[in-house]
Amino acid sequence: MSTNDLGGRQIEVGVLGATGMVGQQFVRLLDGHPWFKTAWLAASERSEGRSYAEAMKWRLSSPPPADALGMRVEGCTPGRGPRIVFSGLDATAANEIEPAFAAAGHIVISNARSFRMDPTVPLVIPEVNADHLPLIARQRRERGWKGAIVTNPNCSTIVLSMVLGPLRQFGLSRVMVTTLQAVSGAGYPGVPSLDILGNVIPSISGEEEKMESETQKILGRYEREAVVPHGVTVSAQTTRVPVVDGHTESVSIEFQDRRSPADVRAALDAFRARPQELRLPTAPAVPIICTDAADRPQPRLDVEREGGMVITVGRIRPCPVLHVKLIALGHNTVRGAAGAAILNAEVMVAESMLD
Amino acid sequence: MSTNDLGGRQIEVGVLGATGMVGQQFVRLLDGHPWFKTAWLAASERSEGRSYAEAMKWRLSSPPPADALGMRVEGCTPGRGPRIVFSGLDATAANEIEPAFAAAGHIVISNARSFRMDPTVPLVIPEVNADHLPLIARQRRERGWKGAIVTNPNCSTIVLSMVLGPLRQFGLSRVMVTTLQAVSGAGYPGVPSLDILGNVIPSISGEEEKMESETQKILGRYEREAVVPHGVTVSAQTTRVPVVDGHTESVSIEFQDRRSPADVRAALDAFRARPQELRLPTAPAVPIICTDAADRPQPRLDVEREGGMVITVGRIRPCPVLHVKLIALGHNTVRGAAGAAILNAEVMVAESMLD
Amino acid sequence: MSTNDLGGRQIEVGVLGATGMVGQQFVRLLDGHPWFKTAWLAASERSEGRSYAEAMKWRLSSPPPADALGMRVEGCTPGRGPRIVFSGLDATAANEIEPAFAAAGHIVISNARSFRMDPTVPLVIPEVNADHLPLIARQRRERGWKGAIVTNPNCSTIVLSMVLGPLRQFGLSRVMVTTLQAVSGAGYPGVPSLDILGNVIPSISGEEEKMESETQKILGRYEREAVVPHGVTVSAQTTRVPVVDGHTESVSIEFQDRRSPADVRAALDAFRARPQELRLPTAPAVPIICTDAADRPQPRLDVEREGGMVITVGRIRPCPVLHVKLIALGHNTVRGAAGAAILNAEVMVAESMLD
Amino acid sequence: MSTNDLGGRQIEVGVLGATGMVGQQFVRLLDGHPWFKTAWLAASERSEGRSYAEAMKWRLSSPPPADALGMRVEGCTPGRGPRIVFSGLDATAANEIEPAFAAAGHIVISNARSFRMDPTVPLVIPEVNADHLPLIARQRRERGWKGAIVTNPNCSTIVLSMVLGPLRQFGLSRVMVTTLQAVSGAGYPGVPSLDILGNVIPSISGEEEKMESETQKILGRYEREAVVPHGVTVSAQTTRVPVVDGHTESVSIEFQDRRSPADVRAALDAFRARPQELRLPTAPAVPIICTDAADRPQPRLDVEREGGMVITVGRIRPCPVLHVKLIALGHNTVRGAAGAAILNAEVMVAESMLD
Repeated sequence: MSTNDLGGRQIEVGVLGATGMVGQQFVRLLDGHPWFKTAWLAASERSEGRSYAEAMKWRLSSPPPADALGMRVEGCTPGRGPRIVFSGLDATAANEIEPAFAAAGHIVISNARSFRMDPTVPLVIPEVNADHLPLIARQRRERGWKGAIVTNPNCSTIVLSMVLGPLRQFGLSRVMVTTLQAVSGAGYPGVPSLDILGNVIPSISGEEEKMESETQKILGRYEREAVVPHGVTVSAQTTRVPVVDGHTESVSIEFQDRRSPADVRAALDAFRARPQELRLPTAPAVPIICTDAADRPQPRLDVEREGGMVITVGRIRPCPVLHVKLIALGHNTVRGAAGAAILNAEVMVAESMLD
Repeated sequence: MSTNDLGGRQIEVGVLGATGMVGQQFVRLLDGHPWFKTAWLAASERSEGRSYAEAMKWRLSSPPPADALGMRVEGCTPGRGPRIVFSGLDATAANEIEPAFAAAGHIVISNARSFRMDPTVPLVIPEVNADHLPLIARQRRERGWKGAIVTNPNCSTIVLSMVLGPLRQFGLSRVMVTTLQAVSGAGYPGVPSLDILGNVIPSISGEEEKMESETQKILGRYEREAVVPHGVTVSAQTTRVPVVDGHTESVSIEFQDRRSPADVRAALDAFRARPQELRLPTAPAVPIICTDAADRPQPRLDVEREGGMVITVGRIRPCPVLHVKLIALGHNTVRGAAGAAILNAEVMVAESMLD
Repeated sequence: MSTNDLGGRQIEVGVLGATGMVGQQFVRLLDGHPWFKTAWLAASERSEGRSYAEAMKWRLSSPPPADALGMRVEGCTPGRGPRIVFSGLDATAANEIEPAFAAAGHIVISNARSFRMDPTVPLVIPEVNADHLPLIARQRRERGWKGAIVTNPNCSTIVLSMVLGPLRQFGLSRVMVTTLQAVSGAGYPGVPSLDILGNVIPSISGEEEKMESETQKILGRYEREAVVPHGVTVSAQTTRVPVVDGHTESVSIEFQDRRSPADVRAALDAFRARPQELRLPTAPAVPIICTDAADRPQPRLDVEREGGMVITVGRIRPCPVLHVKLIALGHNTVRGAAGAAILNAEVMVAESMLD
Repeated sequence: MSTNDLGGRQIEVGVLGATGMVGQQFVRLLDGHPWFKTAWLAASERSEGRSYAEAMKWRLSSPPPADALGMRVEGCTPGRGPRIVFSGLDATAANEIEPAFAAAGHIVISNARSFRMDPTVPLVIPEVNADHLPLIARQRRERGWKGAIVTNPNCSTIVLSMVLGPLRQFGLSRVMVTTLQAVSGAGYPGVPSLDILGNVIPSISGEEEKMESETQKILGRYEREAVVPHGVTVSAQTTRVPVVDGHTESVSIEFQDRRSPADVRAALDAFRARPQELRLPTAPAVPIICTDAADRPQPRLDVEREGGMVITVGRIRPCPVLHVKLIALGHNTVRGAAGAAILNAEVMVAESMLD
């Protein structure tokens, strides 16, 4: 299959944690999806039995899909719901619920951090390491699961790894990154307004460690049913800024052999990967858009490009300390969360991994 | 003289560009100053002859000093006004006006960027390189001036250099810095609200170059009436965030020989310099306050400490790429502009350089 | 003609002031318009001869239409360009340019304030007073113009008048309104960030007068080629808040005979007008959406509904001082500016007023 | 006693709910107070036994008083602590704890809403209705308490009532008010950042009712141990805006006989009351400052005037619907909460009501 077409067939999918912020993004992005049909919404006991309209408080700026509002929310009971379930659960809930669903035969396409670093769980950005997905065979064998768990990275890691993916060919040595992250990444109620109005919070708990380790796994080599982490050393400083959507990252890269800004620009411009070849419904036409404007990318002007699925890169220039520095921006709850998971499911469908 | 005391004597000073944002900060900070008395306010022709109250629109959150409001604003005419004049002029105006004042015998304590990198002009942070001030002897000789120009660095450079100053003893090799800068640094009207509300602007024109070159001059060695730039390599990425006052900087440092976070912390904690020894009126008791809180420094909570003259440093920790990383915060229009200039004047008075 | 269809025919239109903020909204909203084709872009001399991409700095969050970017910007020369021109000029420019275009035979669909209160110029919101449009016959006769000028109200007036329109049937007596207006209403560079970050500016020059007088004209009765202003007394307090798009208005209404919140709600819910009957391309399916949520409407959640063309009303409840109070919200640069003008043009086309 | 002097004597006071936002303001404002010495800090069981430094997370922009940091936090046990206790408890806790303290002999100076509308509890702004304080005699008698509860109004009510107080002489008939309230009024964590960044929330639960009823009680007449509510009708619309400190209120007033803006201005300018006569330590020199600037008051520029204890009023002008309209601004956590309570205690001490 090489086109955006399943022959008219639609696949029913469910959403775990459907009332939360990531869950709402799943519901929004799946509305009108050409392949997937949201057939099942699940959340905590508190929401069970209520309509979706009653159970959640919608917090996205586009209105909720009319079809979803009338659906009855169920509890997160393994075995209920369709084979493919997207998980917008937080880590505490995901720790127990996701394995139970995988054991019961579900393909859990998860955004939670719980199993990202598990050696048998693929941590995937389809443009960068779709080749890690066969890891689920080992996962099933070792765990004795009929289903599986597939994860996408942390939002800030996705922005960085999307940029590093096409540069891996040059030999990545060391990377410094300082992030300026949006509040929507912290969920709801998330960051108190008193902490962030006119302010910067210069740390995000656990975020730097995730960026440093997840990046190595994503860029790693898949061989003999294992991921050999990439040797790149990443140093991250993560901050929160008063922005609603869009993580901005100030990145500096050292290659094994010095590369120029022009080399980097050419590699980013040329970058196409499996989602583009397969013309997956959620894939942007190009994964990365480079801009020549001196003051871009900016969250307000660039974060919604291509439905929030593209990474915008600007200010590619020499770095006096490492080799090349640049600014990257991505939509943290679309490309960095729900959209990332949906793209994972799409590539698995397109590659017949779910048959 | 070793105390905060001029024996009751007060020195009259003037302010060039008194109606602008930096000028207003000069007027505010000089109000009630134990040594200096604001005796002369000068601005562009448009303001000439009007009272200060009429000529400017006050934009600071503390009210304007009552004494200043009734003063008549004069034009920027060299030879008028007291010997010491603080300059809050922008670079275009400063290019011509500051040399004319220096030629006419004034000591111009300037915040403008115009002459910072001039080899005969001291670029001074009193805690870091007060020993560069004797450069004005050469300046006078070469220019034939009776007065002189003394400058303070760019606001973002001051925050960085204050941190690097006490670490110079360890041998500074390479520094990476990403700034998150407040809008007040751009003056008034400055940054349009449409550009910055809920947004990040990932560049500030000329700022990265200033941070990279000014830092080398400030940390440089003074010998035989010249400044030998420090060999440290600085790579800066500068961004604007929706914060009113306070530049936050994400810094990573490599030393000639590896140093630990504990070494850095000890050096910053122990740091005292001439302004503290001399107990200068505007000097903070300690130049740098280190915090152990995981989520500090923050502009909203830390920028007004010690009247805005202290640099707050937090999150000192190992950097996997360079050696040590940390977050630094300083008040950009106080420690980074008007307060910096006033401290320059104070150290010159205390060291009898203006007699 | 009763459907959204011109029989496949497309009408060429131009944009005066195409490089400004309102001009950019015209270009964005006209992109893909079923009836109108942007065939001509005009701006000040500074932009003349440059491509649109070079001449303007795009400031909207959706990307500029590809077709427009390559168009050559012309000067605002009467007689050049298509018959219908949309004007995003500011008042100073509009004062002279719009009459010149009208004299030269153009139908100027203007967003400028210059001629709104001219007794021969229609000031129109198609849902409220499309019946004022025939005023252009008198305008042409008195001015000797072959073309005409048609205006839409000020952005804050549109939100208010859209709510008052369907309540006119009850006999409007007195109205109090306090606005909380977005910064995009002030254009670019517009409001300096230092004035609005974490702040409220409790006045907008000229805005209160416009709301008080324009509302009376819009709600007025058209008879014998004149508009008899409505007798409602409006008292407005206008403020600016740190919001990018969306004017929120706190409104309280007194009727000639007391009416209940339920009466108001029923009238707003039932409201349909000519643009809905004619199914005009830019008209929302319903002009006003009422919400029952206790904390709505909100700019972030509601301003983009129906492409920004709908007014959202919430919290309809008794007012102890007047009769009924409520909160209204509208998109100030879409429904309140460029979208308003386009809807004016559409109704004129549909009603064969431009044949 | 007519001066700011207790003859050197200091009165020990305690703070209930010392770790919360209002509690922190009490601790900050009492630091260095000439009459009161913070001798006892109490909070919930979770904090009991810990030092104040450990028990709370400081959220104010000025640093916490050094003396307080080492104090041991106790539980809210009636009978413990000094006679005067300031209560920064939330309403749920205050419901039970405040009466228990009053029963045990404490004078509870409360900022909680729990007992504000109790007919035996004074609801006091010292500048407006200090004459209601003798109500505590009846309160003690009816409740059988040795102590008492004295309350200050809700933050938004204080701003309004301070303006209405000096206008009561003209005969107040009807008042319309729309508020633009700061997030600090909601405590911590309070308003989620996703709800307020670049947004307006057009309602605050219970706030409108409080403004409408509390104002009548405050402005009421005290006679025969009861407060006869003032007959003024207040209609409030309350909104939340992205401001940290400072409630802005758009007010329109109708008098029994029409009064001009000049009348209102003269009455506000002339306003002095008991706190000013008694020169109470926390009282501003004048309770209300009127400004002639067209765009003031503004939170950023005016909220910190006189330590946050003054109300700033601007734009006094005719109202076409009622009589006079104006903009008022006050600091919601100082004049509107902790500072209000401290002033209540001061006036009681100065009037020898606590002997």
